Amino acid sequence: MNIYAVIMAGGIGSRFWPRSKKKTPKQLLKIFGDQTMIQQTVNRLNGLVKNENIFIITNKEQKPGVLTQLAQLPIENIVEEPFGRNTAACIGFASVLIAKKDPDAVTLVLPADHIIEDEEEFHKTLLNAAKFANDSDGLVTIGISPSRPETGYGYIQIDEKEVSDGVFKVLNFAEKPNYSTAVRFVESGDFFWNSGMFIWKAATILEEIKIYLPELYEGLVKIQNAVGTEDFKEVLTNVYGLVKKISIDYGIMEKSTRVYLTKGNFKWSDVGSWEAVYELSPKDEFGNAKVGKVYNESSKNSFIYSPEKFVAVIGVDNIVVINNDDALLICDRHRTQDVKNVIDYLKINELTDYL
Amino acid sequence: MNIYAVIMAGGIGSRFWPRSKKKTPKQLLKIFGDQTMIQQTVNRLNGLVKNENIFIITNKEQKPGVLTQLAQLPIENIVEEPFGRNTAACIGFASVLIAKKDPDAVTLVLPADHIIEDEEEFHKTLLNAAKFANDSDGLVTIGISPSRPETGYGYIQIDEKEVSDGVFKVLNFAEKPNYSTAVRFVESGDFFWNSGMFIWKAATILEEIKIYLPELYEGLVKIQNAVGTEDFKEVLTNVYGLVKKISIDYGIMEKSTRVYLTKGNFKWSDVGSWEAVYELSPKDEFGNAKVGKVYNESSKNSFIYSPEKFVAVIGVDNIVVINNDDALLICDRHRTQDVKNVIDYLKINELTDYL
Repeated sequence: MNIYAVIMAGGIGSRFWPRSKKKTPKQLLKIFGDQTMIQQTVNRLNGLVKNENIFIITNKEQKPGVLTQLAQLPIENIVEEPFGRNTAACIGFASVLIAKKDPDAVTLVLPADHIIEDEEEFHKTLLNAAKFANDSDGLVTIGISPSRPETGYGYIQIDEKEVSDGVFKVLNFAEKPNYSTAVRFVESGDFFWNSGMFIWKAATILEEIKIYLPELYEGLVKIQNAVGTEDFKEVLTNVYGLVKKISIDYGIMEKSTRVYLTKGNFKWSDVGSWEAVYELSPKDEFGNAKVGKVYNESSKNSFIYSPEKFVAVIGVDNIVVINNDDALLICDRHRTQDVKNVIDYLKINELTDYL
Repeated sequence: MNIYAVIMAGGIGSRFWPRSKKKTPKQLLKIFGDQTMIQQTVNRLNGLVKNENIFIITNKEQKPGVLTQLAQLPIENIVEEPFGRNTAACIGFASVLIAKKDPDAVTLVLPADHIIEDEEEFHKTLLNAAKFANDSDGLVTIGISPSRPETGYGYIQIDEKEVSDGVFKVLNFAEKPNYSTAVRFVESGDFFWNSGMFIWKAATILEEIKIYLPELYEGLVKIQNAVGTEDFKEVLTNVYGLVKKISIDYGIMEKSTRVYLTKGNFKWSDVGSWEAVYELSPKDEFGNAKVGKVYNESSKNSFIYSPEKFVAVIGVDNIVVINNDDALLICDRHRTQDVKNVIDYLKINELTDYL
């Protein structure tokens, strides 16, 4: 079994402004520790996937950063999409590249910007899922056992009868629920967080795209035929120009009849906001997470990030402070989802230097 | 009657960190409008005191800034003290310089960092006080009619019987009161805010120093004799080395029997904190005072100062944000007095770059 990995690294992470910018989105930032999130994502595959089998799907703006940060990968594995067309196109594109190289490839599809702890359990889960996908031609997702009634994640419902060792048939995909629904999901025991990680043979997902997204499939065939020719870039751009924006979840997973889930029993977060970073960060006795030189006088439960400039905080609780080279964010810790509104404001007012 | 002015500009304004620094204390900053506070203080005397009669008493660190900002004054009028020794020494020193030049000089003693509105009324008040001081050999203070039970100011109690046009005998000086005492003071009608502005003949205050602070007087005589000699700097340093730190209020005003008050019926503030700056600043419909490029989402009653960097504030009320080149302050608006604690922290931790 030859395991490949596709790491999707095209997102902009607008909730991580002012640290995330067009050229330095969330996955290219050091959010936790000394490595960027994409470096952590790639290094987490050590011992499971060979470097030559790891593909990064990114875009023009981010490619230079990716090349610098992942110098250990073959440069031809860092692939740019001409435009962002959501995950179905991204995964389809990566799958034709991999299937052309290795028709039997089993592929792990992974976001570039998630946090995962307990690498051993992570490897065990992926390997088990890869074996099942290889043997069954199934589409396998990783579901995380919910530790709280989180309303920020999608959920996946399973049939509790085990199909194979640790693998279950998926019954339903549920959008981000309201709080009471989330409570019900968690109590039920058969709902899991949708982690956005998938395991399948490249050939299998292409078969399913052929059935459920035939227009995309036609385009992918054109791309596959152009691989290695001088027309490749032109064909790719033309195909992408016509492709519809659709997610792999909505386009395939919610429709396919061969979707499975394997439980991920490791600590996971999609780190969707500064609040999530705060929650995952070590804190002092007053519940403050601090990066940089910070003077604190009776401020509690706050996240203060200011690696360069000295900051004094006096008597302010539950705030997030992100003090970057060119911009400063001060936000109620429970409103960090609204940081994306700043992006809209900057776009409307053409303050592009801050984007 | 020859009117002189002494502007005391040696303070550090530690409550205005991170804008105020050793070399750029509060009086050398543009807190309101396009002029620094000391420029506003000097320009406010236009038409009342000739430039050649305006003396600035400052120190070594601040002198270069003062010279640059007050280029219209004769450079010999910008005088540095070797060390800060509180207001009695400062005023005594300035008085011997002026008395040597003009034995009949009437002197206005003014802080460099206060806000005064209604210049016409200000001039009228000072001129009236100067005439009284000239005729009576009295020590005149300006008392501001209290508009609220402020606990941040000292109060002066008067005998309500008018001694001369708008001039009253002072009965008592009261330290900063607690709230209930302040309420009583305001309701009584015979208590006024101590503005720290004084009017007297240079000769009169020197006579009073001779009586109540004889050691200081001895030193001042030595200084006066050394004026214009090559020993001046050495004598000044030696005298200052022995001078006790004592305020003019405590050393003279609370003891002298010829102390008077004239009512200042103009808008005045000693601008003692960022909260005071907020109160005096124009505000938007949400009660926010903003300087710089600020994105605000449902934050109210806050003061946001960031002339260089873009700031986004989301859902945080009643804060003061001072975003300077090298340091950032975020403070509960009602705790801006505690900003001086940051200075102590920086000193203790030898973070002198931020001082």
